[in-house]
Amino acid sequence: MNPKLVIRIVAILLIVISAFMLLPVIVALYYEEYDSIAPFIGTLLGTVIVAMTAVGLTASERKQLGTRDGFLMVTLSWLTAAGVGAIPFYLSGSIPRYVDAFFETMSGFSTTGATILTDIEALPYSMLFWRSLTHWLGGMGIIVLTVAIFPILGVGGLQLLKAEVPGPSVDKITPKITETAKTLWLIYLGLTVAQTVLLMLGGLSLFEGLTHTFGTLATGGFHPKNASVGHYGSTYINVVTTVFMLMAGVNFILYFKTLTGRFRAVTGDTEVKAYLGIFFVTALGTSLALWRQGAYSGLLESLEHGAFQVASILTTTGYVTDDFSLWPPLAQTFLLLLMFFGGCSGSTGGGVKIVRIVTLAKLAVTEMKYLLHPRGVFGVRLSGVPIRESVVHAVAGFIVLYIMSLLVITLVIGSSGADLVSSFSTALATLGNIGPGFGLVGAAENYAHFPDYIKWFLSLVMMMGRLEIFTVLILITPRFWKP
Amino acid sequence: MNPKLVIRIVAILLIVISAFMLLPVIVALYYEEYDSIAPFIGTLLGTVIVAMTAVGLTASERKQLGTRDGFLMVTLSWLTAAGVGAIPFYLSGSIPRYVDAFFETMSGFSTTGATILTDIEALPYSMLFWRSLTHWLGGMGIIVLTVAIFPILGVGGLQLLKAEVPGPSVDKITPKITETAKTLWLIYLGLTVAQTVLLMLGGLSLFEGLTHTFGTLATGGFHPKNASVGHYGSTYINVVTTVFMLMAGVNFILYFKTLTGRFRAVTGDTEVKAYLGIFFVTALGTSLALWRQGAYSGLLESLEHGAFQVASILTTTGYVTDDFSLWPPLAQTFLLLLMFFGGCSGSTGGGVKIVRIVTLAKLAVTEMKYLLHPRGVFGVRLSGVPIRESVVHAVAGFIVLYIMSLLVITLVIGSSGADLVSSFSTALATLGNIGPGFGLVGAAENYAHFPDYIKWFLSLVMMMGRLEIFTVLILITPRFWKP
Repeated sequence: MNPKLVIRIVAILLIVISAFMLLPVIVALYYEEYDSIAPFIGTLLGTVIVAMTAVGLTASERKQLGTRDGFLMVTLSWLTAAGVGAIPFYLSGSIPRYVDAFFETMSGFSTTGATILTDIEALPYSMLFWRSLTHWLGGMGIIVLTVAIFPILGVGGLQLLKAEVPGPSVDKITPKITETAKTLWLIYLGLTVAQTVLLMLGGLSLFEGLTHTFGTLATGGFHPKNASVGHYGSTYINVVTTVFMLMAGVNFILYFKTLTGRFRAVTGDTEVKAYLGIFFVTALGTSLALWRQGAYSGLLESLEHGAFQVASILTTTGYVTDDFSLWPPLAQTFLLLLMFFGGCSGSTGGGVKIVRIVTLAKLAVTEMKYLLHPRGVFGVRLSGVPIRESVVHAVAGFIVLYIMSLLVITLVIGSSGADLVSSFSTALATLGNIGPGFGLVGAAENYAHFPDYIKWFLSLVMMMGRLEIFTVLILITPRFWKP
Repeated sequence: MNPKLVIRIVAILLIVISAFMLLPVIVALYYEEYDSIAPFIGTLLGTVIVAMTAVGLTASERKQLGTRDGFLMVTLSWLTAAGVGAIPFYLSGSIPRYVDAFFETMSGFSTTGATILTDIEALPYSMLFWRSLTHWLGGMGIIVLTVAIFPILGVGGLQLLKAEVPGPSVDKITPKITETAKTLWLIYLGLTVAQTVLLMLGGLSLFEGLTHTFGTLATGGFHPKNASVGHYGSTYINVVTTVFMLMAGVNFILYFKTLTGRFRAVTGDTEVKAYLGIFFVTALGTSLALWRQGAYSGLLESLEHGAFQVASILTTTGYVTDDFSLWPPLAQTFLLLLMFFGGCSGSTGGGVKIVRIVTLAKLAVTEMKYLLHPRGVFGVRLSGVPIRESVVHAVAGFIVLYIMSLLVITLVIGSSGADLVSSFSTALATLGNIGPGFGLVGAAENYAHFPDYIKWFLSLVMMMGRLEIFTVLILITPRFWKP
């Protein structure tokens, strides 16, 4: 292992992240929130000084990073980013207790969108901007992780994407990663500009347009309004947001391929076909359930809200137009089921990820074939390419770990006295990086009421979910620390 | 395929099952319920005549059964057994509607224990005896299936047990199967006598002792009293029942081995160790949760009820001593989690089965090892024996199919207007052959309120769960019916 280099990289990353605090400072200047400037500048300066010192102390001639260093680096990045990102909330008094500020910031960087705020609109614009910006930065980080780093580390079957990354060897990949990452960030930036402009055409201010977009493209869910997207009551805003949430849930590599004219690779992609299929079927089912019970006036309005909420939960965004805990039971059931899915791999969406679900669904079908023809040879294929046994195993291993984690998390939350539905759906909503769930964490609720130990715990759960579980869990195995 | 022989075997099985209707006739004579005699004798005679005709018409020189015949035979057996077994309830007017009678009987033969009866004690003794006897017969059938037939068919990784069955080839196995089955039935019978005697020592009548025992050893859950085991309010009865429920959830092969002196094979069995471990941890957790909230007077009483309910849900029996929907949330959460587990393979317990959970948990650990040492070679071992890749795949395929089935079943139940908790826990309680769940199917509730289409559907779900899902689902694939 090479802890010096790990610390060095994390320190550099922290400098970059804290540099982004200059953006909320601009917001503070514009809205004349002069009290908010010192917390941001103070945090920025403090971080830079500490991080620069760390960089200076960790000068090392060894430039190689091993697999273990990768796990440590990724987990430390998210942990310290949330730790530092929480400071302005705490120093400014916008979030008076550090545990709450840490929860909120981890929820931001993990693109979960679970909030401890009971009155969001009471916060200064600059703080709300930073809050939403953590989503956007977290989303950016995730795209790089899933496209360039997880495939190398081999986490939970994300080797599936390995073929997509140019260059198979860790040593030679660095310049190519940088290249791929740059293109993906440009796409991310382009989508950000596009959605913001479309939202501003719908009457939103630049501040609202940007924060709303950050929450959408990162499939985060933080919104500067208490009533989330429902605040606007606008069909136009709802439709634009639905479309961009869906786009954020697609593997970003596919946009890259579209730009370079490889349309066949896009139309033949098993994952995105399954993703859109799941969306259309569940959106239709949910909307019909809403329509049948007369929850909205007419089929069109049912479709508008049904499709929005389905896209929001499927992509793990967590935006709401309405309190879905008041929806008819069948519509709620559709939403609960969607909480088990998640976006495509290589997107900013969380959850189990569609590619894993498709892989295992195909495995189940394969098993049926073996039952009928025990001596046959059947494999699992994705997008026409056969999947290696080891990858199928990794995917199965991930799903098992996901379910076991869900059960353990449910128990821990239950220990605080939360009821069954709340405990289970909180586990789903945090591990899957969704945000809202049912019961105590329903669409109209928040996470403020949990005791401190649950808030710390859920902060770690959100990080664990975001980093594909294995990345974090492996750090607490004794084997990891053996030389 | 050999449909003639399949029909012949199913017909013979129906004759055997209907012959057991002579037992409730004896009960009717003893309790002077003369009105109940005709429905049983009528059903028995009708079944024998139809079945004998079928046997006569299906005389065939071909004695071989293929894999497909196996699936068809097993599914048809359960389906027709429930169809015929329901007739006495219907003819006698004890259960006035056939759909209800069919649901109740399928619940019996599948050892689920979900009931549509709102006042159980209103039924004649003979009918209650037949109701409980369907559990006992179903449990007997399941032992043979999982120990001798599923391993050959290779359903859902139950090849794990293949090594246990003497003789690997389908052609040569028949006499050995008969031999193994006979021994297992003797063990089953021995346990039945033992529990009945112990219960009668606790003050129960022979009728109560037998029906109570049938529900226990089959991990069924039908009880002749409205308040289930809670009726007696006796610590002695609770403890005896807890012990026998746990014994019914153990692989019956282990008793066989114990009898033949192979103790090391028993103490080294990974599945039973995990099963007992899960029981002790969750029983302790549940009891402490009960104790902390003062639900019962003192720790001992909390342990008594906690251990009982945990054993009941873990083994998928479904007996209750109390309405656990009124228990503290954490205790309920433990029970919900247990609904995902189930008994050991080769037991009468339903659910996912401990062996599958252990296999996949080990797979998850193996995946972690691969992350640290990508070039290592790690396998999954059970009871010290390495598990083949194909079996791991089959197990993973089963789990996926189980979860997908759960989601689809939840949706179908939701379509009847049932709320989220009820829909999801009904799916768990029927597919896992448990019986009671939460909400509308809670410990103090029943299944009477569901519309007819849900009752038919849940009848099939109970059968599907009991027959390891694949066995039933494969029949509706087009590939199955291709020559």
